[in-house]
Amino acid sequence: MTDSKSLDCQNRRLDNSFRLTRVGVTGVKKPVVVRRRGRDNHLNALIDVFVDLPSTQRGSHMSRNVEVITEMIDESVRRKVSSLEQLAANVCRELLDRHDYASYAEVRMSAEYFLERRPDGGSKSLEPYRLMAKATARRGNGLMKLIGVEVMGMTACPCAMETVRHKLASKGPGLSERCGDIPMISHNQRNRTTLMVEVPEHVDVEADDLIDIVEGSLSSPTYGILKRSDEANVVLDAHRNPKFVEDVVRDILGKLLKKYKKLDDSVHVTVRSESEESIHKHNAFAERVTTLGELRSK
Amino acid sequence: MTDSKSLDCQNRRLDNSFRLTRVGVTGVKKPVVVRRRGRDNHLNALIDVFVDLPSTQRGSHMSRNVEVITEMIDESVRRKVSSLEQLAANVCRELLDRHDYASYAEVRMSAEYFLERRPDGGSKSLEPYRLMAKATARRGNGLMKLIGVEVMGMTACPCAMETVRHKLASKGPGLSERCGDIPMISHNQRNRTTLMVEVPEHVDVEADDLIDIVEGSLSSPTYGILKRSDEANVVLDAHRNPKFVEDVVRDILGKLLKKYKKLDDSVHVTVRSESEESIHKHNAFAERVTTLGELRSK
Amino acid sequence: MTDSKSLDCQNRRLDNSFRLTRVGVTGVKKPVVVRRRGRDNHLNALIDVFVDLPSTQRGSHMSRNVEVITEMIDESVRRKVSSLEQLAANVCRELLDRHDYASYAEVRMSAEYFLERRPDGGSKSLEPYRLMAKATARRGNGLMKLIGVEVMGMTACPCAMETVRHKLASKGPGLSERCGDIPMISHNQRNRTTLMVEVPEHVDVEADDLIDIVEGSLSSPTYGILKRSDEANVVLDAHRNPKFVEDVVRDILGKLLKKYKKLDDSVHVTVRSESEESIHKHNAFAERVTTLGELRSK
Amino acid sequence: MTDSKSLDCQNRRLDNSFRLTRVGVTGVKKPVVVRRRGRDNHLNALIDVFVDLPSTQRGSHMSRNVEVITEMIDESVRRKVSSLEQLAANVCRELLDRHDYASYAEVRMSAEYFLERRPDGGSKSLEPYRLMAKATARRGNGLMKLIGVEVMGMTACPCAMETVRHKLASKGPGLSERCGDIPMISHNQRNRTTLMVEVPEHVDVEADDLIDIVEGSLSSPTYGILKRSDEANVVLDAHRNPKFVEDVVRDILGKLLKKYKKLDDSVHVTVRSESEESIHKHNAFAERVTTLGELRSK
Repeated sequence: MTDSKSLDCQNRRLDNSFRLTRVGVTGVKKPVVVRRRGRDNHLNALIDVFVDLPSTQRGSHMSRNVEVITEMIDESVRRKVSSLEQLAANVCRELLDRHDYASYAEVRMSAEYFLERRPDGGSKSLEPYRLMAKATARRGNGLMKLIGVEVMGMTACPCAMETVRHKLASKGPGLSERCGDIPMISHNQRNRTTLMVEVPEHVDVEADDLIDIVEGSLSSPTYGILKRSDEANVVLDAHRNPKFVEDVVRDILGKLLKKYKKLDDSVHVTVRSESEESIHKHNAFAERVTTLGELRSK
Repeated sequence: MTDSKSLDCQNRRLDNSFRLTRVGVTGVKKPVVVRRRGRDNHLNALIDVFVDLPSTQRGSHMSRNVEVITEMIDESVRRKVSSLEQLAANVCRELLDRHDYASYAEVRMSAEYFLERRPDGGSKSLEPYRLMAKATARRGNGLMKLIGVEVMGMTACPCAMETVRHKLASKGPGLSERCGDIPMISHNQRNRTTLMVEVPEHVDVEADDLIDIVEGSLSSPTYGILKRSDEANVVLDAHRNPKFVEDVVRDILGKLLKKYKKLDDSVHVTVRSESEESIHKHNAFAERVTTLGELRSK
Repeated sequence: MTDSKSLDCQNRRLDNSFRLTRVGVTGVKKPVVVRRRGRDNHLNALIDVFVDLPSTQRGSHMSRNVEVITEMIDESVRRKVSSLEQLAANVCRELLDRHDYASYAEVRMSAEYFLERRPDGGSKSLEPYRLMAKATARRGNGLMKLIGVEVMGMTACPCAMETVRHKLASKGPGLSERCGDIPMISHNQRNRTTLMVEVPEHVDVEADDLIDIVEGSLSSPTYGILKRSDEANVVLDAHRNPKFVEDVVRDILGKLLKKYKKLDDSVHVTVRSESEESIHKHNAFAERVTTLGELRSK
Repeated sequence: MTDSKSLDCQNRRLDNSFRLTRVGVTGVKKPVVVRRRGRDNHLNALIDVFVDLPSTQRGSHMSRNVEVITEMIDESVRRKVSSLEQLAANVCRELLDRHDYASYAEVRMSAEYFLERRPDGGSKSLEPYRLMAKATARRGNGLMKLIGVEVMGMTACPCAMETVRHKLASKGPGLSERCGDIPMISHNQRNRTTLMVEVPEHVDVEADDLIDIVEGSLSSPTYGILKRSDEANVVLDAHRNPKFVEDVVRDILGKLLKKYKKLDDSVHVTVRSESEESIHKHNAFAERVTTLGELRSK
């Protein structure tokens, strides 16, 4: 006779099969409230969760994953989590509890996020950013959490600027004497830069600080509202501060070292900068994947 | 007893139901060969096809749609179609033949497309564009075909340029005397512009000509390969030719009128230009939806 | 001498140019709070806004658009707007005020949205939907607003079910006698259906009601959390209620007529249903674009 | 005085800066011809290329990257490359040649790809797949190439099938006796599975073989054209062969071991299977990242 046990296809034992690295659900959407610097942030999170699966078990219990997500989000409303990565950590720990056959759990979350910004002398506006969070735990081995941000801004190319100056100078004598104080034209464009830092659970890194570091390392931040004069200032700032994607990544690395002197050498860091080149149909890209220790020992 | 007729759920007659405007399949992918200006173009087409459905019939015969697409593409290889829109027209006509209950058929195709381009004095490279084609037919009423192109290029903002010039001039006397011949900095960025023209089946409009019109209406075309000096030239060209998205659309409209003097007043025209603003996280957009007749009478 | 007036490139007068249909900004992201049925909904809206531009003016004042959006959203927090479409209407009206040269304004917004759902006897979970809103106004002519929803659910194919039954019956005698009460296998899949209704500004249509209509017209709603027995029920329900995309669209149309008896004949209705067919790599699609008047007169 | 050397911003020496892991261009689109099993395949490749950058150099020479891509593709037409991964390998080797400061190069390519398929007794149709290729080289250390495929197909859930059978059996006695030969309903859906194998340059693995392995490991392949009887067969096949994503990944791993007995233990293997669940709005996912050696020693 069919009993409840035999219905459990997932628990069915397998002989001679393969371990799986990650089994779970992807693309779960949930509203999340995070209490950050005294302010409730209502985030729409996109969530993936996974556990590993031993070679002897046929299936993972997928419905538990969404139950855990839902319960932890309800719990977070009562007890106020301070960040998306803390919520990810809570879900991750609970996954190991509920999937007793698993030795590894992983949670990824991302969400749009807004911060108030104002160009010098201009109007305030909420600017959109993207938060990324990840938590990974190996049973009995502590939990690592990743705090990540994606920031859109502007880069102006230093190389085109030099070549244009050279080309103009070659056409008329005394250009640099006459107009040396005039910033040279270049190509400039939208840039997307991501910065991710992975730390042990008890260590706190503020996403807002990471956003500040990235935004301060571009040729210029960008803004939703720019009156005519603000627009000129942003254009001037960007051209007085031309940057390759390589420069953007290195400036971020330098600022990380200064800001996080107390963080351990083992902390993982990933920086990626991509400029949607205005003169090409493709993008320029630079990346560093490293640890604070490697950066410190250069 | 169950017979083949009763299996035909789609043909089942309905009383008192609703007519449907479009029923069909979307997202069909097929390789297509088009013979254009003496050269075989291998395109990967993304295809949607629809017919209408009378209120008295339950379902459309979906599998016939993909059969028609497949047969017409095979046919096109033997008989060489000259364009994506001609292929769309052939599929559209065949749809009306096979769906005898339908009074309307519609076919949409789009595909990546490459043309050789070379900046003045620079290296040749194949640049990517997007072709769009549509054919619509009402039974007994002839067939209309749409030829469309999407072109990526560069716009430099005329307004920021003026404001920067004004701001710099206000800081030191004689700037315009000293440096009036130096192009002013501005924000510039990637722009995507689409141009679509809808004509009766027997009228031919070359997608390559539409691409030329769009590409010649931006601040500058963009290129895959730019050596240092080519890059400076593109930047100089763009800043000597600053354009709002509004300017891009209007220049295209003006060129259309010149190029297509013989086309009928009834020809539909849509132009859309979108600049991925380097100083904002959002885009600037301009559009005109019209007919040649309206444009001529302004 | 350069004065502030001459800096206004946008206001520059043009001779002999072309009117533009839509000029504005696209892809603006803003957090929005909507008070709906006594509950604050925190939405992340994606926003496009446009006005038209007369042939005599060079450019539209793009920065005003984002100012209007920002002010109206701030205003909405103080005065609590009841819906995304009401916010769109407020922005639309303000656009005509600020762009005095414009005779037309259009606002489009969309946002993820969550509603609590529970399968019979199962666990509650917040399910994701998509809201769409549009407002259009012609100066001196009132304002139209569109309320739209996108709903994900499940369809099971009625045709495959019949053909499988026929095929199995042909293999052994008496199948229908023995097993007539057993639901037949079929292909089933994710379906996305959108329903949009356009009404004059003073008329109210609740997005939640539109979601109910769509979700009740699929083979079955879908859920984030399904315990084993809930899962079986959803599968049984879907197979007892097989639907073509054509059926989905028509059932929605029928329910609209019943629910909105008092709405005017002139109200525009669009219904689109797309099934991500499990047996194909492409989708099945059905659509009706119409008015309540047309539907009523069938 | 400005000379050509000083214009080279990229070559500028830096003191005390950071090494970069990957610097290059992303999103380059090029048409590629690959000669495979005696047939020319016209592919539209999406290409990313990177080299590393020492801490002492400011910028990478980005334009060389697109030059190399273009030259290698031209070369491939003359000398016929046999695969996308061989083209990637050629580009990768050339990158190290042209960027003499680099110690590492990486090339990623992907393209839509079509193979003729026919359901038993049905019509032939070209089905779309996705090829992925990667080549990585460390100077002086040989070159590794990755061959990858993405395949869309169908999975039917084994668990829902069992639970439905149990639920139906509990309602009437003798169901299993009466109807034991009737396949039970379940949820089924579109599935996307990727298989990637990374081998030393001299080793050949055919993408077509990988596609066969994946397509044979799903509940059923899917087809563009299915007449009524073919459709019933696909539905029957899928329900006679129900699969979790976990089963799909493991079956692929088993087939890999059988097919590639001669490949070295060090060969890297990644398998990912994602089912777009018809009963949920999220996906089910399983993955194994491993080597042939690990799989063999289980």
